[in-house]
Amino acid sequence: MNKKDLLSQIKIKNSFLCIGLDTDIDKIPKHLLENEDPIFEFNKQIIDSTHDLCVAYKINTAFYESLGFKGWISMEKTLEYIPENIFRIADAKRGDIGNTSKKYAEAFFENLNFDALTLSPYMGLETLTHYANYKNKWCIILALTSNVGSSDFQTIADKEGIPIFERVIEGSLKMKRNDNIMFVVGATNEENYDNIRKIAPENFLLVPGVGAQGGNLFTVSKKLLNKDCGILINSSRSIIYSSSEKNFAKCARKSAKVLQSDMQEILKNNSII
Amino acid sequence: MNKKDLLSQIKIKNSFLCIGLDTDIDKIPKHLLENEDPIFEFNKQIIDSTHDLCVAYKINTAFYESLGFKGWISMEKTLEYIPENIFRIADAKRGDIGNTSKKYAEAFFENLNFDALTLSPYMGLETLTHYANYKNKWCIILALTSNVGSSDFQTIADKEGIPIFERVIEGSLKMKRNDNIMFVVGATNEENYDNIRKIAPENFLLVPGVGAQGGNLFTVSKKLLNKDCGILINSSRSIIYSSSEKNFAKCARKSAKVLQSDMQEILKNNSII
Repeated sequence: MNKKDLLSQIKIKNSFLCIGLDTDIDKIPKHLLENEDPIFEFNKQIIDSTHDLCVAYKINTAFYESLGFKGWISMEKTLEYIPENIFRIADAKRGDIGNTSKKYAEAFFENLNFDALTLSPYMGLETLTHYANYKNKWCIILALTSNVGSSDFQTIADKEGIPIFERVIEGSLKMKRNDNIMFVVGATNEENYDNIRKIAPENFLLVPGVGAQGGNLFTVSKKLLNKDCGILINSSRSIIYSSSEKNFAKCARKSAKVLQSDMQEILKNNSII
Repeated sequence: MNKKDLLSQIKIKNSFLCIGLDTDIDKIPKHLLENEDPIFEFNKQIIDSTHDLCVAYKINTAFYESLGFKGWISMEKTLEYIPENIFRIADAKRGDIGNTSKKYAEAFFENLNFDALTLSPYMGLETLTHYANYKNKWCIILALTSNVGSSDFQTIADKEGIPIFERVIEGSLKMKRNDNIMFVVGATNEENYDNIRKIAPENFLLVPGVGAQGGNLFTVSKKLLNKDCGILINSSRSIIYSSSEKNFAKCARKSAKVLQSDMQEILKNNSII
């Protein structure tokens, strides 16, 4: 999916919501455990009830890997089940040298047909470039995350006073192909938004941390929205675990609808729709 | 496996060699492709012919993930095949927030029974702590890697002149449990070895980059060896792809033997054996 198609979906759905499928066998409703593949069954029902409200699903690979090869199969089935017009993110935070990054790209862009893969930049820019060679596939590079630990290394300033996460963004944008790069910017980092948009005015940002972690949708949107919308807001647990009863999918829809309605208002107010 | 057991194996085998199973379906000898599971068959023969020369095998997960769930099964079978007395490293470079790191730990320490997992520290110290709760399991944290990109972010100095990789090491050693922590330190970073051993005198270091990438075994050992040996030298491609003929496993043994013989000399010269 390219940028134009993504923006088109945002306009059709009046939404820039990404739903995180952090599907945990210990947290899904107990009645699903009778199914042959409870993880897929949970995802299927969540997708059925929310696909018209979101433009992206983000699959957190850890939850699938923890179940071994069976989890990998549940992930493959989920991915196939997601409608074609929805952006599919592998939240895998990979990052390794050239020959290894080639294999990760094969895993997520070829074998699994994800649209995007999250990447950790610690090992340097060369570890990010291979993914950018895929047409219509996206790198989503960790810049400034929403967790407490983000201040341990990401915000350390170098001798010129520039924090590492800005160096990551600047450096990534110097790569040969940078049209299909997004950055992860947490919803809890308001004080850095102006600077981030200064360095990366055009790029889409994937924003976790709205809701449970304290980020505010309106504040985030006010500072980070650009003419192409330019943000995807991720919500995982607060949507998919809205209820542990049989009606969990309906409840997930309600939670997603609250966010989508706010997003519709924001998109209107900014003349994007 | 705990530190005492690892040192004991080093003394028994006169070796601190780690062999990287970066097993690439496109690079293994063609005759193996007739097997039902060529990746496992390759690994099995490599393990059969080298297990008495090394103390660790490192499985680079990317090569298995690129083959989907079948690759995951090959990884599981390989892991079961590695003899009990050999240290098993998942080179997966994971790194994510609390609830996700819990799942990665389940994947690699419980479901797959690896002894160690490589971790990327970009998201901060909180993303590393969960793994340290496992007794006799090890975190191997990326500090200063051997690739060109290591100078993009890892060596950026903060206002006090301390490079990020030193902050990573210092910070990790302040965690509640730090006895089962190793660091990745590339064999191409000689000028930083004194400092690294000053900050982490006791910890084991996993050292890639000897051979193909230009690192020298004797130089590395002279600077980084401690009283408990304290280093594992990894070699992947230059051992496992020594030949693409039917006798590949014998050739791999020859390459491993050259390194092991040098290691024996080094261990003797340092009175460890």
